[in-house]
Amino acid sequence: MKVGILGGGQLARMLALAGVPLGLEFIILDPSTESGAVRLGEHLHGAYDDKALLTTLAEKADVVTYEFENIPSQVAAFLTEKTTVYPCANALAVAQDRFVEKNFFHQLNIPTAPFANITCLVDLQQAMTTIGYPAILKSRRMGYDGKGQIVLKTEDDLAPAWESIQGVASIVEGFVAFNREVSMLAARSPKGEVVFYPLSENKHDHGILRVSEAKQNDPLQQKAQDYVDCLLKKLDYVGLIALELFEVEGELLANEFAPRVHNSGHWTIEGAETSQFENHLRAILDLPLGSTKARGFTGMVNFISDVPDAETILSIPNTHLHLYDKSARKGRKVAHVGIRSDEQAQFSAALQSVMTLANACDDA
Amino acid sequence: MKVGILGGGQLARMLALAGVPLGLEFIILDPSTESGAVRLGEHLHGAYDDKALLTTLAEKADVVTYEFENIPSQVAAFLTEKTTVYPCANALAVAQDRFVEKNFFHQLNIPTAPFANITCLVDLQQAMTTIGYPAILKSRRMGYDGKGQIVLKTEDDLAPAWESIQGVASIVEGFVAFNREVSMLAARSPKGEVVFYPLSENKHDHGILRVSEAKQNDPLQQKAQDYVDCLLKKLDYVGLIALELFEVEGELLANEFAPRVHNSGHWTIEGAETSQFENHLRAILDLPLGSTKARGFTGMVNFISDVPDAETILSIPNTHLHLYDKSARKGRKVAHVGIRSDEQAQFSAALQSVMTLANACDDA
Repeated sequence: MKVGILGGGQLARMLALAGVPLGLEFIILDPSTESGAVRLGEHLHGAYDDKALLTTLAEKADVVTYEFENIPSQVAAFLTEKTTVYPCANALAVAQDRFVEKNFFHQLNIPTAPFANITCLVDLQQAMTTIGYPAILKSRRMGYDGKGQIVLKTEDDLAPAWESIQGVASIVEGFVAFNREVSMLAARSPKGEVVFYPLSENKHDHGILRVSEAKQNDPLQQKAQDYVDCLLKKLDYVGLIALELFEVEGELLANEFAPRVHNSGHWTIEGAETSQFENHLRAILDLPLGSTKARGFTGMVNFISDVPDAETILSIPNTHLHLYDKSARKGRKVAHVGIRSDEQAQFSAALQSVMTLANACDDA
Repeated sequence: MKVGILGGGQLARMLALAGVPLGLEFIILDPSTESGAVRLGEHLHGAYDDKALLTTLAEKADVVTYEFENIPSQVAAFLTEKTTVYPCANALAVAQDRFVEKNFFHQLNIPTAPFANITCLVDLQQAMTTIGYPAILKSRRMGYDGKGQIVLKTEDDLAPAWESIQGVASIVEGFVAFNREVSMLAARSPKGEVVFYPLSENKHDHGILRVSEAKQNDPLQQKAQDYVDCLLKKLDYVGLIALELFEVEGELLANEFAPRVHNSGHWTIEGAETSQFENHLRAILDLPLGSTKARGFTGMVNFISDVPDAETILSIPNTHLHLYDKSARKGRKVAHVGIRSDEQAQFSAALQSVMTLANACDDA
């Protein structure tokens, strides 16, 4: 079987590494020859909307998937006409637009922060009379890792924020004073089999994920599963999904979902019985899904901007290094380190040591 | 860093899969374009003794290793002159010749079955007066998976056996009525750091490994470690080593060692904190070695001749499929299935189910 992937970065790379043992071949469409996954399969080198390349991809691949959700809807439609695309174009369309996404959550009775659609400064001024400060202005489309987001603290911030976001279609969201950020990863197969991972507890900084830890027996596990289950069924979803949530005093508010494998699930490579990457592939190939059980205490730390040499990382017991084949650049995710131990104290010590290294890289 | 590998079969494939996350690139010399590893790196296509290709390999690779030990000594010598080769040529030389290997064990006070060097039928007849029946005549070189081995039950078998082995340099070994077969895997770095895996308990059939199970807290763990430690130090060994042993009434007799990653260690991919493949790479790159701790109950089953479809295998909980990208052929290892669980009963049930599938494939 041949799996096509739109995008050849670290997510495609880890998908390919999980898929080779299953006998899969990969064909990867990516505009860069430097991307970390392209050496692991056939590389279609060009733009994501290149019709000739998309046709080749559709013809050669038994199923097409993607590693990022900002795929133009016409590309998804074009591919869907020619081959099987998982997750479906509808999931993409919802996830691509924050306003559509938030409305979708509401339809499903999944709580969110208060929000409003913003098409002009007057919209923003009116919305803020009910939402209250602080709040965040976010572009409806193309936002990730905190890009395209502006914090609004007082009325004086509104006009400069609207100018700064260059008048693109946006939403404003009430700021959530959350206790913690979590994400629920799940996979669903075409037969409707669903598996849920233990909740990930996530820490962001400047909008970029820094650390995720698996939380076994979390009191909010079932509620998060119920929300994701609603999403999966409503979308007739196939593949891995990640729903990001805020915990506020024991309640969960949905932030956004990603229709793909997700950074907060990287701990599953060493830390779960079956990784998110393998389960995404099993799902889109209609194979039985694997156990999502966590193995001991486990988590992962992102390396942003740069990463120390392997010797430094691996001298910390219980660490597993995942380099993305990316050169150092300020603000860029270049690696992550998976951590796992049967002993909580050992896990926590390793996590601390790795976080110290990661912070030093990003502050440098 | 670029790692050169002589051989592009399943062992090289699993080395490459373990090495990509560490940021390694691979350059693989293999005479076949069909081998399972060649898609995961640069492929040097040609014979193992092709001097031009070996020169390219040595020039491009920071370190060269191999996935099989039957490399002509002049090839190892040629490479060693030009680049770093791990494990060292001396380890290869010893492992390639059963008589040299057995003598080496004796030098180190590692017990073996009785054996004798055989260069002619008279040697064989004389040796059998002390070794006793049953015994096994084995070619000194190029034997693996039970090839080049003939069982001797009575004096009448001697002449036909010698004829059948075509007069090649051989040894005869007393048959060992063993209680079980085990192997000890260990890795050693250039700095002399050594890690030992939990003993693997192995079952062979017709000379081919069928099943390996990790044995935690085995009473013979320390003795096996001591033997391997002697080998590693004496050879100034770098990389992963596997020593196969027979248990006879609580004592261990060394059978042979493999200077490479080993089939009886495939369970380490899911079942150990760090796989044998990753630790081999860490060792030859002089990186800190990873924990060898087993995670729960774990083992692996080989699929010989053929393998059922992924659906059939993966519908058994706690299984992990590893296809080698090889077409079905009688007697050929085409895949293995890793099994792991925190529950002994669940592990045993999965192992039984997978063994039933594996036996059906091989009997077909």
